[in-house]
Amino acid sequence: MQNTAVHTVDIALAERSYPIRIAPSMLDDPETFQGVPSASSALIVTNTTVGPLYAQALKAGLQPHFSKLFTVTLPDGEEYKTWETLNLIFDALLLHGCDRKTVLFALGGGVVGDMTGFAAASYMRGVPFVQVPTTLLAQVDSSVGGKTGINHPRGKNMIGAFYQPQLVVCDLGTLKTLPQRELSAGLAEVIKYGPIADMAFFDWIESHLDSLLARDATALAYAVQRCCEIKAWVVGQDERESGLRAILNFGHTFGHAIEAGLGYGKWLHGEAVGCGMVMAAHLSQDLGLVNVAFVERLTGMVQRAGLPVKGPKLSDTDNAGRYLELMRVDKKAEGGEIRFVVIDGPSSASVRLAPDAMVRQVIDTCCR
Amino acid sequence: MQNTAVHTVDIALAERSYPIRIAPSMLDDPETFQGVPSASSALIVTNTTVGPLYAQALKAGLQPHFSKLFTVTLPDGEEYKTWETLNLIFDALLLHGCDRKTVLFALGGGVVGDMTGFAAASYMRGVPFVQVPTTLLAQVDSSVGGKTGINHPRGKNMIGAFYQPQLVVCDLGTLKTLPQRELSAGLAEVIKYGPIADMAFFDWIESHLDSLLARDATALAYAVQRCCEIKAWVVGQDERESGLRAILNFGHTFGHAIEAGLGYGKWLHGEAVGCGMVMAAHLSQDLGLVNVAFVERLTGMVQRAGLPVKGPKLSDTDNAGRYLELMRVDKKAEGGEIRFVVIDGPSSASVRLAPDAMVRQVIDTCCR
Repeated sequence: MQNTAVHTVDIALAERSYPIRIAPSMLDDPETFQGVPSASSALIVTNTTVGPLYAQALKAGLQPHFSKLFTVTLPDGEEYKTWETLNLIFDALLLHGCDRKTVLFALGGGVVGDMTGFAAASYMRGVPFVQVPTTLLAQVDSSVGGKTGINHPRGKNMIGAFYQPQLVVCDLGTLKTLPQRELSAGLAEVIKYGPIADMAFFDWIESHLDSLLARDATALAYAVQRCCEIKAWVVGQDERESGLRAILNFGHTFGHAIEAGLGYGKWLHGEAVGCGMVMAAHLSQDLGLVNVAFVERLTGMVQRAGLPVKGPKLSDTDNAGRYLELMRVDKKAEGGEIRFVVIDGPSSASVRLAPDAMVRQVIDTCCR
Repeated sequence: MQNTAVHTVDIALAERSYPIRIAPSMLDDPETFQGVPSASSALIVTNTTVGPLYAQALKAGLQPHFSKLFTVTLPDGEEYKTWETLNLIFDALLLHGCDRKTVLFALGGGVVGDMTGFAAASYMRGVPFVQVPTTLLAQVDSSVGGKTGINHPRGKNMIGAFYQPQLVVCDLGTLKTLPQRELSAGLAEVIKYGPIADMAFFDWIESHLDSLLARDATALAYAVQRCCEIKAWVVGQDERESGLRAILNFGHTFGHAIEAGLGYGKWLHGEAVGCGMVMAAHLSQDLGLVNVAFVERLTGMVQRAGLPVKGPKLSDTDNAGRYLELMRVDKKAEGGEIRFVVIDGPSSASVRLAPDAMVRQVIDTCCR
């Protein structure tokens, strides 16, 4: 590749392996897309916020590869991560006569990436797709690893597929236009990788949090790269979450309850995860796995990142009961028993059951 | 298994291998379901026609295996093979707190099987499922091989997944209650296996067609078994239809156009395939691949099976043009070029392009 600043992280999954390419301003460079399966047509899936900013650059990069380039623009927000919106992608594919070889490009954040991936998994029973994440959260987490899907009113990401992209393109330049709230949301997933896998990286995040919040290019580049490396290591060992991969869900059991309970889109996913990590840290402490100093340190970092550390009230009559009800449909639950990702040592997480009474106490402690 | 009459055909797909068990009256026998993954709960998906006839028997067979058994009953018919109906399955799964280990059972014909399979592929990104086909068409074709999905107004089976069941249970006893029109529809797919793979079987069908139409148990048992063997052989070599598997689509390119063009449910899938095979045979003849005697023999068998041999008019102004338009979104099409499965010798089929003018002539010849 001409762009010498491109850093590559490989996801090793045998015949489903693919690279993550990380660099500033690489969307309009045709070389960025070397190795993408050849086809006569491609469909760019984006949203009303990201499309006007970056679709032109992406088209310039793709033009030499595809003779027909189509675009479909979705509404922006978690509340649109539904079948109705997904169907806009299918409608566009069929309207333009796209076939089994057509390549889909997801240009946007986690919602666009998850929906485009599921559309690619399902259109004609599977077509290739490429992730072009434009939010910090999507670059460090959701665009990597092949989890795709949509929400159901009763639960987050309940309908979807494990379906790997052909390539992930993290253009760091796109982070310049990210609203501050979205930057903070992305930092939740960045912080997550510390306790579950790499406390040295946690130390680094702690000392570079101000630089990250100020969008220092070098700091962001390192954060994206290190997160992708950790995620690649985890996903490479457990693609379909039969074990280890569940640790990436630290903070997500509580977080998904917040998102579904408030109604999707009220809190950003990263905000719910940030707060959820604080709650999961309290639970880890109550289970005797971490000390209060760790809980306070994590809480402080989440707060400094600009994220909520107190959970919302989801019910006026029985708040903890409502959280529990929502968490019982979590994908990690089995036979109605909720399974929590807890921190059980430095750079180490595991999945545990917890007594309802203990979980209720955590919720009472951590919610307004 | 206690039932000594059980015939087993194995689908060999490495870690996705599974057996097809064929026998009369086996639904209420718990041994039928030996080897299905253990779980606390199971969901039976059926429809308003089949449920009242066989859900009780299936429940009796499943009771020893699952402590919680739920049922969801869908409306009956191809016109309900939509996202809205699929969502009834997701609603039931979430309402009952079903988890990642819950096993889905598809009790019904091709529509129930295709939708249950796609629901299983997508619920929490994948749960196990079992096919319990109760129509001849589903027993000889659609329940085997892992093609799942729903229709889109612009094209048949456009949204779906390749997702293999854990087991297929063909209870021949269920064919006793099949309406005659559905029996004929199933015979279309039975006849199909002759020209594409086994002309000796074609001879057998020809001489046993009256027995099959009279539901002779021995004849039906042999037909189901032989079709499953051929399908197992094809799918074992090409699970995801990158080549050989396309031959199973003989008659389906024209057939899908008829189904979508008339509106789903007007003609049964098997009726459209029967007529589609006649059209594909004419095309094979026009391409110089078969002689008129073959076309007449196949047409005669389709007619004797009680199936239409003349295609419907899909447009008053440009009938052939409308067929072509609908066929251009066929999943085998590439770059707008329709690819047809044609017969190119005894027991042999292949995928070919054909000039529009030739296809128009076939349509004009074969439609009312």
